[in-house]
Amino acid sequence: MLTSEAILERLKKLTIPGTSTNLVQKGLITSTSVEGGEITLSVASCAMPSPVLNSLERDIKIGLGAIPGVSKVRINQVDCTPSELNRIKNVIAVMSGKGGVGKSTVSSLIAISLKRQGFTVGILDADITGPSIPKLFGLTGKPLGNEKGIMPVASRTGIDVMSMNLILNNDTDAVIWRGPLIAKAIGQFWTDVLWGELDYLIVDLPPGTSDAALTTMQQITLTGVVMVTTPQELAALIVRKAIDMTVKMNARLIGVVENMAYFPNPATGEPIEIFGPSKAKHLAGEFGLPLLAQIPVDPRIAVLCDAGEIEEYNSDIVSGLGIEVIRLLEEPRPVGSSR
Amino acid sequence: MLTSEAILERLKKLTIPGTSTNLVQKGLITSTSVEGGEITLSVASCAMPSPVLNSLERDIKIGLGAIPGVSKVRINQVDCTPSELNRIKNVIAVMSGKGGVGKSTVSSLIAISLKRQGFTVGILDADITGPSIPKLFGLTGKPLGNEKGIMPVASRTGIDVMSMNLILNNDTDAVIWRGPLIAKAIGQFWTDVLWGELDYLIVDLPPGTSDAALTTMQQITLTGVVMVTTPQELAALIVRKAIDMTVKMNARLIGVVENMAYFPNPATGEPIEIFGPSKAKHLAGEFGLPLLAQIPVDPRIAVLCDAGEIEEYNSDIVSGLGIEVIRLLEEPRPVGSSR
Repeated sequence: MLTSEAILERLKKLTIPGTSTNLVQKGLITSTSVEGGEITLSVASCAMPSPVLNSLERDIKIGLGAIPGVSKVRINQVDCTPSELNRIKNVIAVMSGKGGVGKSTVSSLIAISLKRQGFTVGILDADITGPSIPKLFGLTGKPLGNEKGIMPVASRTGIDVMSMNLILNNDTDAVIWRGPLIAKAIGQFWTDVLWGELDYLIVDLPPGTSDAALTTMQQITLTGVVMVTTPQELAALIVRKAIDMTVKMNARLIGVVENMAYFPNPATGEPIEIFGPSKAKHLAGEFGLPLLAQIPVDPRIAVLCDAGEIEEYNSDIVSGLGIEVIRLLEEPRPVGSSR
Repeated sequence: MLTSEAILERLKKLTIPGTSTNLVQKGLITSTSVEGGEITLSVASCAMPSPVLNSLERDIKIGLGAIPGVSKVRINQVDCTPSELNRIKNVIAVMSGKGGVGKSTVSSLIAISLKRQGFTVGILDADITGPSIPKLFGLTGKPLGNEKGIMPVASRTGIDVMSMNLILNNDTDAVIWRGPLIAKAIGQFWTDVLWGELDYLIVDLPPGTSDAALTTMQQITLTGVVMVTTPQELAALIVRKAIDMTVKMNARLIGVVENMAYFPNPATGEPIEIFGPSKAKHLAGEFGLPLLAQIPVDPRIAVLCDAGEIEEYNSDIVSGLGIEVIRLLEEPRPVGSSR
């Protein structure tokens, strides 16, 4: 017998034109019913321009019509906003306070690590004036969209990305905006982007404890915050400010990642502390936080990032990163603690 | 005969209590007159709390009274704002767009280099949420001030610094402010700080092209902008945005500094391109800008920065930096060009 489940399974195979995702993951099939050989579907038109929607309706009719016993496929378009369709289970902000410590690299590596574990993952690039994520993933396509919403752009391995640099005509154009506009853009990346069903949304925050961080913590329900630092005491000073903000905003701190922790001597492999001795263990200990990972300076990362191929990067540290985040999120949050 | 000039020379020797500077450099002596053996001075009370002012008046009376032929010293206090007293010849913003490329380090090295050449130099730390300058210079003192203005804190070698971290009770407190407050703070660092007479004021900008950069370019008359980058193409992408903003705001671009350009192999001294091959020459060429300097990763810098002793740093690159900035500023700005 023809069931709604079987129909949804079939629909999952249909890719939305111009994306690597399907209607079901995006939550765009809002209802299905079967009566005799007649299928009636409600499809949300959200974030899909008319030509895409028309082409998709043809694909649906052909795809479902080919199932034995199906005599008719009826499609009703319904109006929905992305907020009504999004089902995001965990939102992890990657923060530092300090610039250039590798927040975007760490955000990407966490996303890649979780994706390799089979989860559905998105990255919201909250750095409106200095967005890095599209460059790291080599994304150049423009997002689909209509007046109801905007579709994220999928990476080669299927990580959904939304970033200011996907919207700009020219990715070197400056976004000369004051705070209220920055805050509005981040709000829209959360409410007006059709993320669909995601296990993990990673929010890559810009440096500072001003509008971007404030809006993210006020408007987005964060599961937790990963704090990124480098060995320099100077970085740790600013990271302490970011931790202070996170505590004051009552968000949960998952742990600390130390990036550029050391550089392995090319001859001997021995770690050279090019940015001074590591302070991450001390910093994490000071706030009772786990040290999630210490990532060395690896010229391969720089090369892959510049080539837009960060998804090609392999290392034990990366493999472990996602698992470690999941493990820590499953630990009960201490009563009375803001961590 | 007793002249105003001789009096000013004498007054230059009197240090303002709690600072390493004098009344004349700060522009606080607004008039002097000599009649017979009687000296009359007008002293602006700006930025000096009453006890400091009282102690200073005693010092002035004792100091000038000891000059042969002086029978009386009269002091009138006058009301002035710092804006009325400041005489700043050149304002150089250090910008990148990208975080963590070493804007604060480069700002400091330019300031140190100019100071060593005998110029009076100040640093305005425009990074309100992530200020680094006090840490680099090991500054922990609180600035003097009254309702009229605030006095910068001098470094060991006499570089005047104003930074949010000098004002906070605790230097790890987060400044959780939205853009308008950030802009206001930068405006106040410009108008309400008694910089006095400076040859060069270096403005250390935070990452991004939002409130801080916008306020700096709109409210402060910049002599020029030094752009900082690193070898990563990712950094260059964001630096291009900062250049785009600078051009759009019609500020003058002085040149490009590439920080962390390479790491000298500890065994052979050969440069290892730990962040990938240099792109600064290409970037500078693209915009017709001079390449001011390529600064290697030097663990000594990291150690000195963390110890608050950046002024101890010596290298050929640093010595040349200030001279190069001066030389480029003296070049005529091409007609019809915004650089």
